[in-house]
Amino acid sequence: MSVRVGVIGVGMIGQDHIRRITQVLTGGSVTAVNDVDAARAGQVAAGLPGAVTHPTAQELIADGNVDAVLVASWGPAHEEQVVAAIAAGKPVFCEKPLAPSRGACQRIMDAEIAAGRRLVQVGFMRRYDAGYRAMKAALDDGDLGAPLLMHCAHRNPSVPDYFTTDMIISDSSVHEIDIVRWLFGEEIVAASVLTPRRSGHAPEGLQDPLILVLEMAGGALVDDELFVNARYGYDVRGEVVCETGTVALADVSEVTVRTQNRRRAVLGGRPPQTPPDGDRVPVDWRDRFIRAYDTELQEWLDAVAAGTSTGPTSWDGFAAAVVTDAALEALRTGQRTAVSMPERPDFYAK
Amino acid sequence: MSVRVGVIGVGMIGQDHIRRITQVLTGGSVTAVNDVDAARAGQVAAGLPGAVTHPTAQELIADGNVDAVLVASWGPAHEEQVVAAIAAGKPVFCEKPLAPSRGACQRIMDAEIAAGRRLVQVGFMRRYDAGYRAMKAALDDGDLGAPLLMHCAHRNPSVPDYFTTDMIISDSSVHEIDIVRWLFGEEIVAASVLTPRRSGHAPEGLQDPLILVLEMAGGALVDDELFVNARYGYDVRGEVVCETGTVALADVSEVTVRTQNRRRAVLGGRPPQTPPDGDRVPVDWRDRFIRAYDTELQEWLDAVAAGTSTGPTSWDGFAAAVVTDAALEALRTGQRTAVSMPERPDFYAK
Amino acid sequence: MSVRVGVIGVGMIGQDHIRRITQVLTGGSVTAVNDVDAARAGQVAAGLPGAVTHPTAQELIADGNVDAVLVASWGPAHEEQVVAAIAAGKPVFCEKPLAPSRGACQRIMDAEIAAGRRLVQVGFMRRYDAGYRAMKAALDDGDLGAPLLMHCAHRNPSVPDYFTTDMIISDSSVHEIDIVRWLFGEEIVAASVLTPRRSGHAPEGLQDPLILVLEMAGGALVDDELFVNARYGYDVRGEVVCETGTVALADVSEVTVRTQNRRRAVLGGRPPQTPPDGDRVPVDWRDRFIRAYDTELQEWLDAVAAGTSTGPTSWDGFAAAVVTDAALEALRTGQRTAVSMPERPDFYAK
Amino acid sequence: MSVRVGVIGVGMIGQDHIRRITQVLTGGSVTAVNDVDAARAGQVAAGLPGAVTHPTAQELIADGNVDAVLVASWGPAHEEQVVAAIAAGKPVFCEKPLAPSRGACQRIMDAEIAAGRRLVQVGFMRRYDAGYRAMKAALDDGDLGAPLLMHCAHRNPSVPDYFTTDMIISDSSVHEIDIVRWLFGEEIVAASVLTPRRSGHAPEGLQDPLILVLEMAGGALVDDELFVNARYGYDVRGEVVCETGTVALADVSEVTVRTQNRRRAVLGGRPPQTPPDGDRVPVDWRDRFIRAYDTELQEWLDAVAAGTSTGPTSWDGFAAAVVTDAALEALRTGQRTAVSMPERPDFYAK
Repeated sequence: MSVRVGVIGVGMIGQDHIRRITQVLTGGSVTAVNDVDAARAGQVAAGLPGAVTHPTAQELIADGNVDAVLVASWGPAHEEQVVAAIAAGKPVFCEKPLAPSRGACQRIMDAEIAAGRRLVQVGFMRRYDAGYRAMKAALDDGDLGAPLLMHCAHRNPSVPDYFTTDMIISDSSVHEIDIVRWLFGEEIVAASVLTPRRSGHAPEGLQDPLILVLEMAGGALVDDELFVNARYGYDVRGEVVCETGTVALADVSEVTVRTQNRRRAVLGGRPPQTPPDGDRVPVDWRDRFIRAYDTELQEWLDAVAAGTSTGPTSWDGFAAAVVTDAALEALRTGQRTAVSMPERPDFYAK
Repeated sequence: MSVRVGVIGVGMIGQDHIRRITQVLTGGSVTAVNDVDAARAGQVAAGLPGAVTHPTAQELIADGNVDAVLVASWGPAHEEQVVAAIAAGKPVFCEKPLAPSRGACQRIMDAEIAAGRRLVQVGFMRRYDAGYRAMKAALDDGDLGAPLLMHCAHRNPSVPDYFTTDMIISDSSVHEIDIVRWLFGEEIVAASVLTPRRSGHAPEGLQDPLILVLEMAGGALVDDELFVNARYGYDVRGEVVCETGTVALADVSEVTVRTQNRRRAVLGGRPPQTPPDGDRVPVDWRDRFIRAYDTELQEWLDAVAAGTSTGPTSWDGFAAAVVTDAALEALRTGQRTAVSMPERPDFYAK
Repeated sequence: MSVRVGVIGVGMIGQDHIRRITQVLTGGSVTAVNDVDAARAGQVAAGLPGAVTHPTAQELIADGNVDAVLVASWGPAHEEQVVAAIAAGKPVFCEKPLAPSRGACQRIMDAEIAAGRRLVQVGFMRRYDAGYRAMKAALDDGDLGAPLLMHCAHRNPSVPDYFTTDMIISDSSVHEIDIVRWLFGEEIVAASVLTPRRSGHAPEGLQDPLILVLEMAGGALVDDELFVNARYGYDVRGEVVCETGTVALADVSEVTVRTQNRRRAVLGGRPPQTPPDGDRVPVDWRDRFIRAYDTELQEWLDAVAAGTSTGPTSWDGFAAAVVTDAALEALRTGQRTAVSMPERPDFYAK
Repeated sequence: MSVRVGVIGVGMIGQDHIRRITQVLTGGSVTAVNDVDAARAGQVAAGLPGAVTHPTAQELIADGNVDAVLVASWGPAHEEQVVAAIAAGKPVFCEKPLAPSRGACQRIMDAEIAAGRRLVQVGFMRRYDAGYRAMKAALDDGDLGAPLLMHCAHRNPSVPDYFTTDMIISDSSVHEIDIVRWLFGEEIVAASVLTPRRSGHAPEGLQDPLILVLEMAGGALVDDELFVNARYGYDVRGEVVCETGTVALADVSEVTVRTQNRRRAVLGGRPPQTPPDGDRVPVDWRDRFIRAYDTELQEWLDAVAAGTSTGPTSWDGFAAAVVTDAALEALRTGQRTAVSMPERPDFYAK
């Protein structure tokens, strides 16, 4: 049985998920789309045999031919749309962030708890990356002892003009905020921000790079280098230092070229439709994480079809928002800031 | 539109392709199965909603609910089944070898040429591996100059008892025979076999390892180490030496573990349903090439849906058979053996 | 002309330098030794044809057969011995730390400036490591733009019982303190210490690991993980993040072994007298830096013979002491601590 | 006690050994030089305090201030000079080849056996390379089982105009001929030569690349790619395939640079006097093997001082000549050629 998905928000990321469901994954189809830009919605639907457009997200959610909802609209709209999907009893995949404020995330959790069934999955796709999964397996295996430290780096070649220092925290570091909660199986209790010399390539007013330091409930420390004008490529790195060893994301390449007194590791592993470009360091997040996105959405479709729920929950979305708030305050004040995390509702126990 | 596939032969490889079409890929479904073991066919069909079984391959091919045929029966049956599919005007994906003799391959080509349309794709899946694709891109790019040599190694941890020295040529080296034709864009003109000391782990009577030397039409030489009891893992290697540089398949790992005075590259990248096992060197061909198989069959489904034909042709299957014959004679006689390759029919020009 | 060296302090490190001068390097000989343990001095001298022992460091320095002095005594004795060598007009190589207090280092500088000639070299051997040298060359080259961040890790498998948390700063991190001053060509202006969860393998009372954060005069930030019970091996790592790229110390191995489904990088590059042990991660500082020590002392002998001075100066020793003081205060107070570095005397300008 | 060395032949390699003995190594000095070009000998001696020149090799060997002789003259002169040193009872280090013909090597062995003492060491420096030593240690360890195959590559960026195809065998592959005898602890029993397409960068008439296939007494096969116009750099590779695993020379780099969407392994490890050049692949044999040369000559000096003999013997020089003869015949005839190796004299037993 194929899951009929309604997609709210058909900008770049929404269209990419539609391509994924219709051309890459199995067990799903897109039967309805909605966008604040009705013309864009119409254009996208035109390329999808059998798909209809709805003038409002509410009508899409109510559509009897929609089994599950994928929310890829802009952040401020998430709360209303996710809550509506919950009210309709339909599984909903919501791109990160779950919602732009702690309060909004809380209201989504409240609605879901009231509904009595886990319906929400948040789009933290790194949990589906083969590297992070192998890292988690190595940690859970126990041979390395307790994790004490993690060193992360999150580098983008560049960012658009409208990108602000706050967004380095809320849009970029949120990925590490989620992944360390998942890797360590613990909450984050405090955040600090260190501000080194700015790159000459950073736009006026942008504190780039910066280092976010996170303290885990068990005492482990995470340092996360955020550098969004790193120029040389898109590069996500991570090493967890444990009591008897370390585990680090490996560099990946498909072939090694030797020429002109150089040895180069070359990445040719883009999806087949894109010609290999001989670049080793990924050029962007899509290049680096495309398989993680595929796995993420496939597992979501599988879970929906099975009537179960896996993956990052509303609680994970809420927790990320709470930590992000603390990190933003740490950035503003220059001080170590405690995270005021409430108890996790039993509803979200493993 | 989804391609309705009929599968002939539902042993291990046939079942794996069925899993792929129904659970991994998009744009295809399995609507009919056939197997010489009717009970097995029935069991497999039982797990496929809407699929029927046919008592004969002929009836499966004739089924109006079958758009395209996948042949995964044993080699001696291929000719009849593939020719029947051609006669029915249906696209057919045939696992390698296309057929066990040069004559049989010729008759398939004759049928296809008579039908006036390319309908056959042969299952040489390495052409879909990201490593080999990046290698071909590097060669086609031209920066490295003309290829002069290729060093290959093809190592299996072990083989079943019935495996013979002839099968090292016909079942194992056939992969390199195809891939070097594709990489170099040239035919193979001669073959020799070198027989080193046998491994103590090779069964009585098996010449393992051996080295197959292939001479390309343009004069380049390929040495291919075949070692099917290499014990330590499944390892496929390749380096093409060109006039101004070389390109080699890289080792792939997802994380690096440091512990007990060792640094280890660890592969955790099995499909999600299989738990990561901490082994770096792949354990078998499935582990190494699973993504190549996925890409291969997805591109076939896409081509069938588009009414076009891509991928290895009957001519490629025929050429592999002709070279395999020469290599087997070289093994028997200990002599360099010329390959008696006819002209490629225009029908198979690029 | 061979430089006749007098060695003060013939414990482990002193004896290692004697072995180096007499068996590995060229252009030097050991003609006199002194140690607070006269019996030990006698034993060492007995193995050195033509070498004499002196009851006091003062007499060794005065010996007409001593051209240059190597100080490998314990830290508290350094000041008196180095000042005496300066007074005698003899070049002196002093193991790190130059002296255990800022004041003592200052007095050594004063004496040297008064003597009007640079006579002192401090034993910061990492500057002679091929990896750090290649890193500095890459930075000086300019292609990478300005350095913004450096991530360091300094891991020992274990430390003796008497090792204290203060010593993690004064004995271990002092190496990074010196190397970042040299790599960046700038002073350090502030230090902070972060204290993560302690390893279960750290002795009671030892804060291990810890992270030292250093702020450079130009605004770059350095984070230095110090972990002296890392168990898995001796591992020194470093990556400098610049405006358009990064440069990192590489992992070094001499052969790659594939066996039992593992691929292992193996280090066999100990000096020939030590049998290769198949371990990839170095086991201790000697294993990692033996060539740096060789190069360091060879270049010192060469400079002495040429009547010139190269390498880390008294000023570098002083600066390391000043930064160490700040780091120790940061450790005690938990606060970011400014480094009260005076102006560099012109005498020590490049 | 320092070994006083007389050097016969002060061309490039002779001068490099003189630099080594006087500036890098310990325990040796150069007291006399001789060269067919008396002016060149005089110039070299002028830079060596206390060294004299001798008009003939014979007089140098007879010099009472010469303890040991280093022969770096051209090949045809080796026999007479080495035999004279043996007659004088002086240890002699002879650059490879020991002598240009089997007969000449035989006469050297005869002279040495008659003298009753091993006095000759042949300059096969690869045995002193850390990579090959680690490889031999891994093989001798036994964990990998019996060696079955070895794949070698020996690539030079280019060769001078006078270089002939015969010299690819006699000058280049002789290094692998020696190293495989040493690694396997067995003699070579047959040789074949394969001739692929010539590189467009090979001078008219030069068969470059070529593949030399060597058969070991125990049945193992060695394939050696010789490519002396490989352009991209100097690259020596080797992998031994054993019954339960493989061991391969690793690629060595000192730092890893990430820039412009590339990740590059960079070699900066030239001797300190040479500025790091950012090239990863070595540029020539000196760059790759300089440490092996240092170790080789240091161990020779140590052995001479100790009155013992280690390293490659006259028998090794003879055996290399015999195999080279067979390889040259194989090149000429295109046929597999048996090596007519006599029994090893007991005098040369381990």
